[in-house]
Parts: sequence; C-alpha cells; structure tokens
Amino acid sequence: MDNFHMCPKFESAFELLGKRWTGLIIRTLLGGQKRFSDIAEAIPNMSARMLTERFKELEKAGIVVRKVYPEVPVRIEYELTEKGADLQYAMNEIQKWAEKWS
Amino acid sequence: MDNFHMCPKFESAFELLGKRWTGLIIRTLLGGQKRFSDIAEAIPNMSARMLTERFKELEKAGIVVRKVYPEVPVRIEYELTEKGADLQYAMNEIQKWAEKWS
Repeated sequence: MDNFHMCPKFESAFELLGKRWTGLIIRTLLGGQKRFSDIAEAIPNMSARMLTERFKELEKAGIVVRKVYPEVPVRIEYELTEKGADLQYAMNEIQKWAEKWS
Repeated sequence: MDNFHMCPKFESAFELLGKRWTGLIIRTLLGGQKRFSDIAEAIPNMSARMLTERFKELEKAGIVVRKVYPEVPVRIEYELTEKGADLQYAMNEIQKWAEKWS
C-alpha cells in the first residue's frame, strides 16, 4: 500500500522534471549559482520568456532560490536549494538510462 | 555541448514517467509479468481504459512487452523488457528524493 502513498509525489517529481529545459537548467545550476544571463547564454535555444517561466516553477517547487544582492546595479542570481541539488542523483540515473537505451 | 545532445532523450524519459499511473504500472511489473486484470486489481483507482492507453504507450516506448500464450482460453500477460526493468534504478532515486523532500 506504500506504493499508493508515494505515487502522487513521485509523479509530480517526474512531471516537473519532464518539462522542456528544466533538466538542463538544473544541470547548469549544479555548477554553482548563476545570473539569468549566464543561463540564457548556456542554453541558447531557450527563450528568455521560457527561462522566466521555468524559474518561477522551480522557485515555487523549492528547487531554485532567487538571490538579490543590493549592489549598484543590483545583482540577481539563481541557486539550487539543498532540495534542488539533491536531484543530481536521480538525474544521473535517468541520464544513464536514456543514454544506454536510445 | 554534451548537455544539449542528451537533453531531448532525458526530457522524453521524464515526460513518459511523469504520466499518471505509469510509475506505478512499471513498479507493479518489476515484481514479474502480470495479466491485465492483475494490474487493474493492484491499482484500483485506475480505469481499465487508462491502463490500456498506458500499456500502448509503454509498448511503443519498448518498456513493456505484451505476451500472448496460445492456450484455451488465450492468456495475455505483460512484462517489462530489459529496457523497462532497467528503469528501477532511476525510479528508486526519484522516489528517495520525493520521499525525503515532500
């Protein structure tokens, strides 16, 4: 019965990570916190609007945090939370599987 | 650049596994091949129509194989392919993550 208990959490995790660009954004942030423009440059095929949308979803899910540094000009960076960084193990396994079987 | 190369395979794997019931169907089949009715009973909230649809997707993706035994009455069972069974590692990691962070 534990299956039924876990199922919604499990599915929502896969649903989130299955969205276009999300995996790549997380992977880029695994290298450390980044500015919006750094990520936009690292993933050139993704529009800025899409990146804004993905960041909102990832912030809401507690995977990414937006840090505002009160400098002049203001500096804004995005960082994985502990929860977000902890996704690396699952992402590595999925990637190994996808690589092996495609 | 390897990131960009892997991305579509990676996303389509997550997309497939993020669909409602798919993870649970695969987990049920990890215990060995089953009849349609066995799985329908194991996941009572899922409709038979939904299970038919999911099996079609999973067969198309090469994750599940439908085996027809020419007995009287005919026996049909569903089994994970090697590719399908190989998903257990990624599924375990996602589940651990979901359990830890929900």
